[in-house]
Amino acid sequence: MNAPVPAPSVLAVRPEAELAPTSGIVDVFNYGRNREGLIPLWVGEGDLPTPDFICDAATRSLAAGETFYTYQRGIPELREAIARYHDRVYGQASDPERFFVTSGGMHAVQIAVRLVAGIGDEVLIPTPAWPNFIGAITVGGARPVTVPLSSGESGWRLDLERLADAIGPGTRALLINSPASPTGWTASDAEIRAILDLARKHGLWVIADEIYGRFVFDTAPGTGDRAPSFRDFMAPEDRVLFVQTFSKNWAMTGWRLGWLEAPTALGQVIENLIQYSSSGTPVFLQRAGVVALNKGESFLADQIARARRGREIVGRLAETGRIALPPPAGAFYAFLRLPGSGDSRRVAMRLVDQANVGLAPGSAFGPGGEGHLRLCFARKAEDLEEAVRRLSGTLT
Amino acid sequence: MNAPVPAPSVLAVRPEAELAPTSGIVDVFNYGRNREGLIPLWVGEGDLPTPDFICDAATRSLAAGETFYTYQRGIPELREAIARYHDRVYGQASDPERFFVTSGGMHAVQIAVRLVAGIGDEVLIPTPAWPNFIGAITVGGARPVTVPLSSGESGWRLDLERLADAIGPGTRALLINSPASPTGWTASDAEIRAILDLARKHGLWVIADEIYGRFVFDTAPGTGDRAPSFRDFMAPEDRVLFVQTFSKNWAMTGWRLGWLEAPTALGQVIENLIQYSSSGTPVFLQRAGVVALNKGESFLADQIARARRGREIVGRLAETGRIALPPPAGAFYAFLRLPGSGDSRRVAMRLVDQANVGLAPGSAFGPGGEGHLRLCFARKAEDLEEAVRRLSGTLT
Repeated sequence: MNAPVPAPSVLAVRPEAELAPTSGIVDVFNYGRNREGLIPLWVGEGDLPTPDFICDAATRSLAAGETFYTYQRGIPELREAIARYHDRVYGQASDPERFFVTSGGMHAVQIAVRLVAGIGDEVLIPTPAWPNFIGAITVGGARPVTVPLSSGESGWRLDLERLADAIGPGTRALLINSPASPTGWTASDAEIRAILDLARKHGLWVIADEIYGRFVFDTAPGTGDRAPSFRDFMAPEDRVLFVQTFSKNWAMTGWRLGWLEAPTALGQVIENLIQYSSSGTPVFLQRAGVVALNKGESFLADQIARARRGREIVGRLAETGRIALPPPAGAFYAFLRLPGSGDSRRVAMRLVDQANVGLAPGSAFGPGGEGHLRLCFARKAEDLEEAVRRLSGTLT
Repeated sequence: MNAPVPAPSVLAVRPEAELAPTSGIVDVFNYGRNREGLIPLWVGEGDLPTPDFICDAATRSLAAGETFYTYQRGIPELREAIARYHDRVYGQASDPERFFVTSGGMHAVQIAVRLVAGIGDEVLIPTPAWPNFIGAITVGGARPVTVPLSSGESGWRLDLERLADAIGPGTRALLINSPASPTGWTASDAEIRAILDLARKHGLWVIADEIYGRFVFDTAPGTGDRAPSFRDFMAPEDRVLFVQTFSKNWAMTGWRLGWLEAPTALGQVIENLIQYSSSGTPVFLQRAGVVALNKGESFLADQIARARRGREIVGRLAETGRIALPPPAGAFYAFLRLPGSGDSRRVAMRLVDQANVGLAPGSAFGPGGEGHLRLCFARKAEDLEEAVRRLSGTLT
């Protein structure tokens, strides 16, 4: 039964799929998975499970027998709750018809890319960046064109001229993740305006991933804080697709629940793309999403406070003088610059063995990432303090 | 805020996505959704919610905090349970590494198509067929080539010569759904062998959708029954991808939980395609899948018995002499041939209004489907008896 089968190329799998890039994060994650006592800071999730008040909504829905097929665009109650959440956070009235429930933020990215970038089309993306962006663009048949951020003493910076120069006749979209993983780069109002201007001038789409928008640290603490958004400056005719998720704000990474925001004119096309990929998202998961949005603001405030504290603790690594670490403006990652020009994948593997700490290799995040390690600080203080102790002894 | 936005073409959405075909089933479904007293027989799902013993496993997992990211290929416990299920049903030992958990059967179809059919490649598909096959092939950039089944007094039949004639230089795969929606066509042992021979001769993949494999009616009743499968005749080097789902057997349509079976050599490529589409399936849904496979056999036997009874009741429509309805060999649909050459979409809309019964228009199922209506008989006897009464008065 389990006779050896030929390699993929012999099996005549189509090249695009065969070449789907493998994420180096998963490599290291698989290497260290299940190690006793390992402090896992490699993946973009915190240490808290989803709070009970959110889980309970799913349980109630299951008990009520909501286990049938449902609306491809999402249940109306969730689309309305998403609209109200946007009204509250961004201070603008939103049409629920603009929101499409997806099976996670990744699913929203996949659909967004398929909407705007065909075979051979180019999508510009500042790097270092979450590797799944590159993955989604590549397996969709389009071509990612990376635009490295500059890094300096005061942190990462987008060179707008460099971005403009990268626009060519094949460019269809700009994929902008702000606040960004892994760098924490957060676009200012002026930068967002400038990017929008570029998109208008060249007839490009913006795919805006603002999933870390609530995690900002350079403003006064408070639940009302958020990063600048394309929503603040866009006109109705602007071509912007927003990718969002429940994962980070409400500790729901494992739920695979998110949304895509798009012009209502694209509704039927998006419905079809959902139909032919996931065929909709379970109702009982969506019920939990409604509760997260309607009653999750104080949990989210706690999450942000934890991340703020985590950022302080991890910042101590810079005190050794061996690791460069400009404090990230947003998101919940420290992107540690290693001394010398180490192979970050090898260093990450070594840290699993020697420090029992899981970090993500910078090489996984594209041009500009090598020589760094990503550390997720959305975690309880004791773990982070212990991780800093272990890393200080090994890394520096 | 809600200013009118331009149509998709003006928005410069890429053509493949813009042309994603719209399913006529969804049209009619949306037309009649929420009508008081309507008997909904249009969609491929029964009337029973997921049984408690399955839901409870999800609830327990949620309560235990299993709300984090997980294995892209599925949790080991579920992959092992799937392998054991196959051992039991098909009498062959299976390697758990051949099974990849997906977010529903549709997700498995999407990945299978992407694996084997690139831009412009052709996938042959007997029709009438589930419209989502055509959708997945089309939005993936490949070209569906339909091969109409023949229909006669004794039911639907695959013309193997016609299938062979349709193979051209661009053909990469045969998509075979047996037992089939909407026709109930079920490949015999001899037909499966012949299809495998064709695939070998031309170096093609077979994408085998055997999700209705447990729903067969022309054998003696009993839980061990199943339709012939490609698994019965394939050699280790054969290129067969199997698409499966929990939806139909265990009343879990709304869970979006299924699996893809493929040669282990494709494991990394499939893992990447999952990573860049769904990024995995929630652990707590997978726990429910384990219980369904391990303890769901008697529930499944009840489901099959219900469908068998439903098939008898619906068969009475043929007694009117106005509607042709050869008894389907498998799956749980009656595909009613209308008198004359009616527009099935219009007739389906009319039946919503006049009979308050929801049927799916045959035109949605591709060449050979027009002039028919699909009726799902996986439902309690009283509903089906009432539906037959209403339809007899209106249709005939």
